[in-house]
Amino acid sequence: MSFPQNRDTHGPGKDRFMKRLFVIATLLGAAPAMADEGMWTYNNFPSAKVKEKYGFEPSQQWLDNVRLSSARLAGGCSASFVSANGLVMTNHHCARGCIDQLSTAKKDYIANGFYAKAQGEETQCPAMEINQLVKITDVTETLNKATQGLTGKKYADTLKAKMSELEQACSAGNAKARCDVVTLYQGGQYNLYEYKRFQDVRLVMAPEHAIAFFGGDPDNFEFPRYDLDVTFLRVYEDGKPATTNNFFKWSDKGAQEGELTFISGHPGRTSRGLTIAELEFQRDVVLPKTLMTLSEMRGMLTEFGRRGAEQRRISTNLLFGVENSVKALKGRHEALLDKTFFAQKVAAEQDLRKKVEANPEMKKKYAAAWDEIAKAQAQLRNIRQDLTFMENGGGLSSTLFQVARTLVRGAEEFPKANGERLREFNQANVPALEAQLFSPAPVYPELEIARLTFSLTKMREELGSDHPFVKKVLGKESPEKLAARLVKGTKLRDVKARQALYKGGKAAIAASKDPMIQLAVALDPDMRAVRKSYEENVESVIRKNSELVAKSKFEIYGTNQYPDATFSLRLSYGAVKGYSENGKQVSPITQMAGTFEHATGEEPFALPKSWLKNEKALDGTTPMNFVSTNDIIGGNSGSPVINKDAEIVGIVFDGNIQSLGGEYGFDESVNRSVSVHSQAIIESLTKIYGATRLLEELRPGSTKVPPVKASPAK
Amino acid sequence: MSFPQNRDTHGPGKDRFMKRLFVIATLLGAAPAMADEGMWTYNNFPSAKVKEKYGFEPSQQWLDNVRLSSARLAGGCSASFVSANGLVMTNHHCARGCIDQLSTAKKDYIANGFYAKAQGEETQCPAMEINQLVKITDVTETLNKATQGLTGKKYADTLKAKMSELEQACSAGNAKARCDVVTLYQGGQYNLYEYKRFQDVRLVMAPEHAIAFFGGDPDNFEFPRYDLDVTFLRVYEDGKPATTNNFFKWSDKGAQEGELTFISGHPGRTSRGLTIAELEFQRDVVLPKTLMTLSEMRGMLTEFGRRGAEQRRISTNLLFGVENSVKALKGRHEALLDKTFFAQKVAAEQDLRKKVEANPEMKKKYAAAWDEIAKAQAQLRNIRQDLTFMENGGGLSSTLFQVARTLVRGAEEFPKANGERLREFNQANVPALEAQLFSPAPVYPELEIARLTFSLTKMREELGSDHPFVKKVLGKESPEKLAARLVKGTKLRDVKARQALYKGGKAAIAASKDPMIQLAVALDPDMRAVRKSYEENVESVIRKNSELVAKSKFEIYGTNQYPDATFSLRLSYGAVKGYSENGKQVSPITQMAGTFEHATGEEPFALPKSWLKNEKALDGTTPMNFVSTNDIIGGNSGSPVINKDAEIVGIVFDGNIQSLGGEYGFDESVNRSVSVHSQAIIESLTKIYGATRLLEELRPGSTKVPPVKASPAK
Repeated sequence: MSFPQNRDTHGPGKDRFMKRLFVIATLLGAAPAMADEGMWTYNNFPSAKVKEKYGFEPSQQWLDNVRLSSARLAGGCSASFVSANGLVMTNHHCARGCIDQLSTAKKDYIANGFYAKAQGEETQCPAMEINQLVKITDVTETLNKATQGLTGKKYADTLKAKMSELEQACSAGNAKARCDVVTLYQGGQYNLYEYKRFQDVRLVMAPEHAIAFFGGDPDNFEFPRYDLDVTFLRVYEDGKPATTNNFFKWSDKGAQEGELTFISGHPGRTSRGLTIAELEFQRDVVLPKTLMTLSEMRGMLTEFGRRGAEQRRISTNLLFGVENSVKALKGRHEALLDKTFFAQKVAAEQDLRKKVEANPEMKKKYAAAWDEIAKAQAQLRNIRQDLTFMENGGGLSSTLFQVARTLVRGAEEFPKANGERLREFNQANVPALEAQLFSPAPVYPELEIARLTFSLTKMREELGSDHPFVKKVLGKESPEKLAARLVKGTKLRDVKARQALYKGGKAAIAASKDPMIQLAVALDPDMRAVRKSYEENVESVIRKNSELVAKSKFEIYGTNQYPDATFSLRLSYGAVKGYSENGKQVSPITQMAGTFEHATGEEPFALPKSWLKNEKALDGTTPMNFVSTNDIIGGNSGSPVINKDAEIVGIVFDGNIQSLGGEYGFDESVNRSVSVHSQAIIESLTKIYGATRLLEELRPGSTKVPPVKASPAK
Repeated sequence: MSFPQNRDTHGPGKDRFMKRLFVIATLLGAAPAMADEGMWTYNNFPSAKVKEKYGFEPSQQWLDNVRLSSARLAGGCSASFVSANGLVMTNHHCARGCIDQLSTAKKDYIANGFYAKAQGEETQCPAMEINQLVKITDVTETLNKATQGLTGKKYADTLKAKMSELEQACSAGNAKARCDVVTLYQGGQYNLYEYKRFQDVRLVMAPEHAIAFFGGDPDNFEFPRYDLDVTFLRVYEDGKPATTNNFFKWSDKGAQEGELTFISGHPGRTSRGLTIAELEFQRDVVLPKTLMTLSEMRGMLTEFGRRGAEQRRISTNLLFGVENSVKALKGRHEALLDKTFFAQKVAAEQDLRKKVEANPEMKKKYAAAWDEIAKAQAQLRNIRQDLTFMENGGGLSSTLFQVARTLVRGAEEFPKANGERLREFNQANVPALEAQLFSPAPVYPELEIARLTFSLTKMREELGSDHPFVKKVLGKESPEKLAARLVKGTKLRDVKARQALYKGGKAAIAASKDPMIQLAVALDPDMRAVRKSYEENVESVIRKNSELVAKSKFEIYGTNQYPDATFSLRLSYGAVKGYSENGKQVSPITQMAGTFEHATGEEPFALPKSWLKNEKALDGTTPMNFVSTNDIIGGNSGSPVINKDAEIVGIVFDGNIQSLGGEYGFDESVNRSVSVHSQAIIESLTKIYGATRLLEELRPGSTKVPPVKASPAK
């Protein structure tokens, strides 16, 4: 998945969504009552509330263990440690990039699956980083003090410098430590998250794509479902499996209807705390424009895949990400277009503002914040197209151009003091940046040319052929010709060429005749200019004033709230529970037999051979997928679902379509996370994949009785 | 152009649009003051107002002559008669379907242009119909009397039957007469339009696509412009050029800055009179959904064209239409998203409703209408997806399937009484239906399969794979396999096969083993059911209540208004005039020299060889394109621009991007129609195309001095 943070809890645009009424506790800013709402931080988890509703109160020790057993894929997913020897479980769609990069036309692990029968066969993923959250420190006061009384550029610069300083002091040159200052409550709080960083990650087992994503795009965000969306990885240190003392054990029975479940993972982003001005901008500008571009790209990529089998193979991963985003964003867009829902959001903001206005002191501190944010949004409206197509890659969507730009900017940025660099060149971010930059993952020229042609055409369309930047990029060339010339002419597919330029710094860049490098050099000043304008006139204003809005909420509604998701570790609670759709009750757990009943033999409803061959060996009543009321969102993909004994009962891989508005609010009556049941994993590892080594590691002693039938995937 | 009614006056989605403020006279329901607003019917033209502003008052004789010199391409464009021998001028993009259908891989008239040096070389267009409006009769009273007191299905059935009766009585079995009851003012008035129908239309002259659509999609809806978007056709009767006594002569100098101009043509549709509930539905549902589908189709078709030169040739026409629609609809969508504009629309409706409420008699008659329409819109929301993908072709987008369905339905409908048939099978519509059905235009299997695969996939996505209709269509096949099987298996590419089934009626259909026919038979009951639900629960309610809203407007604001566009003949007035954009003045007339200055040699900015070769022979100061304040919209493409002496000074082919909100309101300060200047046509026919025969016919006696240089296009 290229866009896993966009995945999961947003569904397709179906009109049935329009019919339902949102009942969202947080809409009025108050703490959620008894709904299973919230993606809670580990230092503010409502244990008492869980006890009140479910009779179990997580202790601090329980929370610490669960936190340390949870993992993050830095690329945008969640995962968990499932053995003391660094075994990691995540979704197939989260590890898809790695599986794809390790595949070739002859060894297609996406199509055929992968299983390392011995440890020596575990194969390193080209650019994967896994993080484990080891410590949280509240640094709100430090940062507030540093920025006190500042506004605009001064505020933004100071905040950035201070954040960098904290992060650098925390990691202190230790490449294995990753430290991020996490902005919570839109700036109401700042926490320093210290992670242990694993950069040697190897592929252990992956099923075939056909069963991992059974039902494909048509079934994406739907339930009932029948997917085995799981993959096992292993983190290594110094060439050996890492020792992971905190990990989740396997439950005997897996998730049961009605059972209390926790989900510990990294929801990517929610926008529940945004102001009305910001939501309107999303609804009227960002979402419709993005959806159109993604839709067009989807059409292009689908047809690109018809050029031939190899073209299909190399483009499927990207298409998969695009299709997933289309569904997710459609869901978000429709949520915002729901008049009743939006009116509730408006009412909540008016209530808050009225309360602020009624208190002279608060009025003085906070009352102007909403209008300031609205003004910044209006500014953003003016520069959005430039920002999208110049700085944010919308015009030059190409892996090789991104590599070139990173090299060009790196040469410029690294000589500067840490706090003065563009944020992505901060010392703390260097290991991740280098892993990405020097990834040996293949770059396919034919697909690069297609993507670049597409984005250049889009840029010319949106900015207009007379725009100075467009003229600078295209000159007298057509998008197609320029794309072909750049991709065919560059040497940057070769990692060694990248390393040489990286080491060579400014002089090497200046001397380079590589057409991608030369283009990146030529365009960088224009790109930087629009970024600067954005950061100074928009981002800093929104940041500063969002802090104020957040503080007014604390003062008025108290601190017993959860912050919007920020791709940092959160814990949600809920129960395995069905729901009602179009007047019909949807049962919460599907069975393996249903998988076969839904197979048509045609993609995306075609089962892999290994499944067809072993159908009779399987127990059809084995639970396959299930839903629970846990509040999650894209980025939670791969999160462990655990019971109160902190045992694995499933793994999250999606949300139902009714969860599509989760970006903006939670509705417990129908919002459901969708998970693979732990029993389906065991049953298929045993009877389909014959993965004895893996099973023994997950459930020591369990494989003493040999499996009925064994036929490995590869 | 496949979508010419969507063309012209809607521009691309640029944020600059968001900045401007609409000032629209009709917003408050009052007659427009002194703005050049309005697409006026010929029986309610504001001659006195034109005199007041421009000093010229069109007489009834003047109006009659202009009306009879105007023409309509039944497929969705406008045109004019420009000689006594049936010569017709329209846009290249309006005749593009014909030019494309006459082309083959070896004789590509789209790429190379077409010119019939002698009359015998004029070639018949496969399926083109031209109409000339000969008479208008007000039938409001007759229809009102017939439907008095009726509602729902009864109202709709009676209205339909009565309309058919009037139309049939009018054409009275004369295949050369076409009679349409035109609904004006959303049902406030009904007029019977009687046309002379020409079905033998031949291609006379077309320039190369590269100059007709110079600048392509990036420049579409932009100004300044440099296009020669013109094509000449001829109508024939009994195998000979038709005699057309009413026609436009050619002006000596063509359009001059500041000059009064009239545009007589067929604007396709505006939505200025819609209620807020209807506009919201457009803004929040129809436009975003349609834009996403069209965008995806655009991506697919662009990439389809990369399969090879022939694939590109056969798909370009469709892509061209899709791209045009995308820009047009984006423009409309952004107009409705403009908060200021929408607030004005809301205020206007509230003003009207308040006035209705204040008068007890009006209140009784009209007050409920708005809520009734809103309720019908809510109904539509529920069935829209079914309607789109089942009845309206969204799920089976294929020329061959449409042929099959017409045959299947025809066999069912034709035995019924005229008034009881589905509207498109009315006797009055039969000539057009047959021309379409038996068109010898080639159908390309590869493109058919691609389109059908696309639409079947879309249908499965939007309706869901468990929808009964989806299951019925797909069974266990994938969209791709089904599409290939149907297209490869059907005999309907052969016009004779169509004729046999058409003549064979119900028995022939029942006996047919053709897979397209069999599918159409199987699906027809489901399709009819959703159409019936729509007509009875939505369309009839909206129709009935829109009549009431329109009548309330007449009672309150008087009858000196123009109705929304309905693809019936209208006359607009204005002047050749520049405008201001981003603080810069845009000059109203471009020159031929600018065409060469904008050429890059790369599509879509590559000039054809004939132009490059003859550049020096051309007078660079010849006016090329120009803008005027006339209020037009898609469907007006190909309309003559005439001066007060009813002489051709240009031909409309587009609108500027600021006209994009024209669907919903008119802003004279920036809304401009874009036309080819008459002098550019003469200069290029003379010096590039050596079209002596054509020039002599347009301006008798003008070619006695031979052109400087002649090199025909083909």
